[in-house]
Amino acid sequence: MPKAEARAIRHGFPWVYGNELVLDRRTKNLAPGSFAVLEDANRTPMGVVTVNPESRIAARMMDMDPAAEIGPAWLRERLAVALAHRARLYEAPFYRLVHAEADRLPGLIVDRFGDIAVMQPNAAWTETMAEEIAAALVEIAGVTTVIKNGTSRGRALEGLAEETAVLVGTAPAAPVPVPMNGATYLADLMEGQKTGLFYDQRPNHAFAAGLARGGRVLDVFAHVGGFSLAALAAGAEAALAVDSSAPALALAGQGAEASGTAARFASRQGEAFAVMEALAAEGERFDLVVCDPPAFAPNKAALDKGLRAYERVARLAAPLVAEGGYLCCCSCSHAADLANFRAATARGIGKAGRRGQLIHTGFAGPDHPQLPQLAESGYLKSVVFRL
Amino acid sequence: MPKAEARAIRHGFPWVYGNELVLDRRTKNLAPGSFAVLEDANRTPMGVVTVNPESRIAARMMDMDPAAEIGPAWLRERLAVALAHRARLYEAPFYRLVHAEADRLPGLIVDRFGDIAVMQPNAAWTETMAEEIAAALVEIAGVTTVIKNGTSRGRALEGLAEETAVLVGTAPAAPVPVPMNGATYLADLMEGQKTGLFYDQRPNHAFAAGLARGGRVLDVFAHVGGFSLAALAAGAEAALAVDSSAPALALAGQGAEASGTAARFASRQGEAFAVMEALAAEGERFDLVVCDPPAFAPNKAALDKGLRAYERVARLAAPLVAEGGYLCCCSCSHAADLANFRAATARGIGKAGRRGQLIHTGFAGPDHPQLPQLAESGYLKSVVFRL
Repeated sequence: MPKAEARAIRHGFPWVYGNELVLDRRTKNLAPGSFAVLEDANRTPMGVVTVNPESRIAARMMDMDPAAEIGPAWLRERLAVALAHRARLYEAPFYRLVHAEADRLPGLIVDRFGDIAVMQPNAAWTETMAEEIAAALVEIAGVTTVIKNGTSRGRALEGLAEETAVLVGTAPAAPVPVPMNGATYLADLMEGQKTGLFYDQRPNHAFAAGLARGGRVLDVFAHVGGFSLAALAAGAEAALAVDSSAPALALAGQGAEASGTAARFASRQGEAFAVMEALAAEGERFDLVVCDPPAFAPNKAALDKGLRAYERVARLAAPLVAEGGYLCCCSCSHAADLANFRAATARGIGKAGRRGQLIHTGFAGPDHPQLPQLAESGYLKSVVFRL
Repeated sequence: MPKAEARAIRHGFPWVYGNELVLDRRTKNLAPGSFAVLEDANRTPMGVVTVNPESRIAARMMDMDPAAEIGPAWLRERLAVALAHRARLYEAPFYRLVHAEADRLPGLIVDRFGDIAVMQPNAAWTETMAEEIAAALVEIAGVTTVIKNGTSRGRALEGLAEETAVLVGTAPAAPVPVPMNGATYLADLMEGQKTGLFYDQRPNHAFAAGLARGGRVLDVFAHVGGFSLAALAAGAEAALAVDSSAPALALAGQGAEASGTAARFASRQGEAFAVMEALAAEGERFDLVVCDPPAFAPNKAALDKGLRAYERVARLAAPLVAEGGYLCCCSCSHAADLANFRAATARGIGKAGRRGQLIHTGFAGPDHPQLPQLAESGYLKSVVFRL
C-alpha cells in the first residue's frame, strides 16, 4: 500500500480504503469478513486486517501484530479490556460495552442492559463471527442473553442485510428497565433503534437535569424520555416530552411511572417543528428547553441543509425559553462539526430575537471512546445556552 | 464605524478595535473608562460603550440600549442576572460569579468564596467604577468582603497598574476553605493567582476523580491540589502532587488535612518535566496521571512552541500511566484550539510508544459562560485518554 497511508496505519489509523489496497492472487478472492496480513510497499507485514471487498473500507486493522490469531481467546482479551473501563466508570452494568474501532473491535457495537447484551455487527467479520462474539460476551461480561440487532445504516455499506435475532438466551418479553441518572428508563430491545436506548447522551442528560431543578422542562425529539426523565429525577417541576413516535412516548410515560415521577410528566405526540410553533402560539414558556433531533446532516452532501435545520430548531425553540432560562441543542450529525453546529444554533437564537451565553459543550459519554485519529468525526455534540 | 463591524456588533460581538473607530471632537479626549454612545456609519446609535484609547480594544459594548445609564442600578441588575445562574448551578456560594463579556460586564471578573468576593478589574471602566462594583456586590450577593486583585496580565493591555487592595471589609487572615467536588481546598486570596483557586476546572476535576477510585494518582502542575484532592475525596488510594511552587503545595497539603485525606496525600516539589523523568526512571506507574500546565501557547506567536511543549508533556506522562490507566491533559492556552491540542497530546502519547482511546473532552465549567461570538477562543480544554 502507498507510503503515506502505511504511515497513517502505523500511527493508528484503522482503515484502508479500496483504492489504497493492492490485492495479490491469494487475497483478491477473499470472502467478506475474512482475515489477511496487511503489508506495506516493501512487503513488510503491518498487522492482521479484516477484508471486505464490498465495502469502501476495504480493510480494517484488527491487530498490529501480524501473527495475531483472531479467535475466541483474542475476542475474550479485547472484551475484557473494554469491560474493565466500563466497570470502573459505572456502578450498574448499563452502558455501551464495545464502541467499535476505539475498542479495537472494528465495526462492532455492543450495548449492555444488565444481563442482556445487544450487539450491532456493522462490519462483515462481526457478522461471520457473530456466534463467537456472543459466546465471548457470555464468558467475559456474564450476560445471559445476546441479541443481534442488524438494523443499523452502516450494514448496507458493508453489504449486510437487515436482521434481528436472539443469539443466546431468550428475548426479553417486555421493555427492560434501565437505571440512569437517577431515573428508570424503559428500552424495547427487540424493536431496534426506534425504541431502544442511547447511552451516549448520559452526561448531557445529567448536565441539563442539573439546570432543571424546580423548573419546567420541554423535551423536543424526546424519544423514550432521555432528557425529561433525568430532569424530573433531578427535581424538575414538570416535563413535557414531544415526539412523533407514539411507541417511544409510551415508553417515556412508562419510564416516568417506573421513576415515580409520572405525576409531573406529560407528553405530546406530533411533528417537532409544528408542536414548537403551536406551543409558542399558546404562549408557553419553559425554564429549560432541550432539542435532540435526529441527524440532520448525516453526510457532507447534506451539510448545508442540515445546518439550516439546526438553525431552525434553535429559532423555534428560543421563544419557548423563559427569560434567564436555558436552551440545550444537540446534534448527532457526523458532518456538522462543533463550530458549524454551534454557529447555526447561535444564529437561530439571534433570529428569534434572543441572546445567549454559551454555558456548556458536551459530547458522547466515556463509554463511547474515540480513536484520536477519528476524533474530528465525533458525532454527538450538545451545546447549552442561557438566554 | 464600518458596515461589517457594525453588523457584527448588532449580532452581539462585544468589541470595537481602535482602527474601526472614528472619534469626533467630543469623544477623542474621553478618559479611559468613560462611556459614550456608539454610532454606525449613518450615525444611528448602536448602544453605550466604554472607551479606552490606550487599549487595542478601543470600545467595549456595555448596553445595546443607547439610553442606558451605567450606574449603581445598572450594575445591580447585571449582577442579579449573573447571580441567578450560579445560584441555580451550585449549592454552596463558591463559584465564578462574573465572567466578563459573557455576563455583559466587559472586562470584569469576580470569583466568590462564600462571604468574600475577589474582583479582577481588567478593563478601564471597572477600575474607575471599582467602588460602585464593590457596593453592588455587597448588595446583590450579600458578601461582606470585597478584594480587588489587580495582578492579571490583561491589565497591562489596558494601561492599568498591578495592585491588590481590600475595598470592603477586612482581608482574610488565613487561607479560605473552599468546598468543591467533595474535597476542601485552601485558597490564599491575598497572594493573587499563584495560590488562589481556579474554579474553571471544577467539572474536569470531577470527571477525572470518577476514574481514580481505588487507584494511584499523579497530579503534575498540581497548584493547590485541584485534581489530587478531588480524586482522594472520590476514593483514590493515593495521590502525589507535583509543582514547582512550595507555597502552592503547602496549601494542597493543608487542603488534604481539611478534607480528611492527608494520609493518602503526598507532594514533591520540583520542575514538572524533570520530576516526570525521575518518576519514570524510578519505575513508578499510576492509574491516573493528570497534567494541567500553565498556558504554553498564550498567543499565536507562541503556538508552535506551545504545541511542542504540550506534546512533550504527554510524551513524558504516558510512560507513567499503568496499562489500561488514564491520562488527562489540560491546556489553558487561547491560541491552541482543541484540535491542535488534542493532536499534540496524541502525538506525545504515540512517541512514548503508547496508544490511547480518547474518552472525554471537557471545557471550563458553566460558571464560565462564553459569548458564542468568542467561543472559538474558549481557552480551557481537557482531554482524557485511556492508554
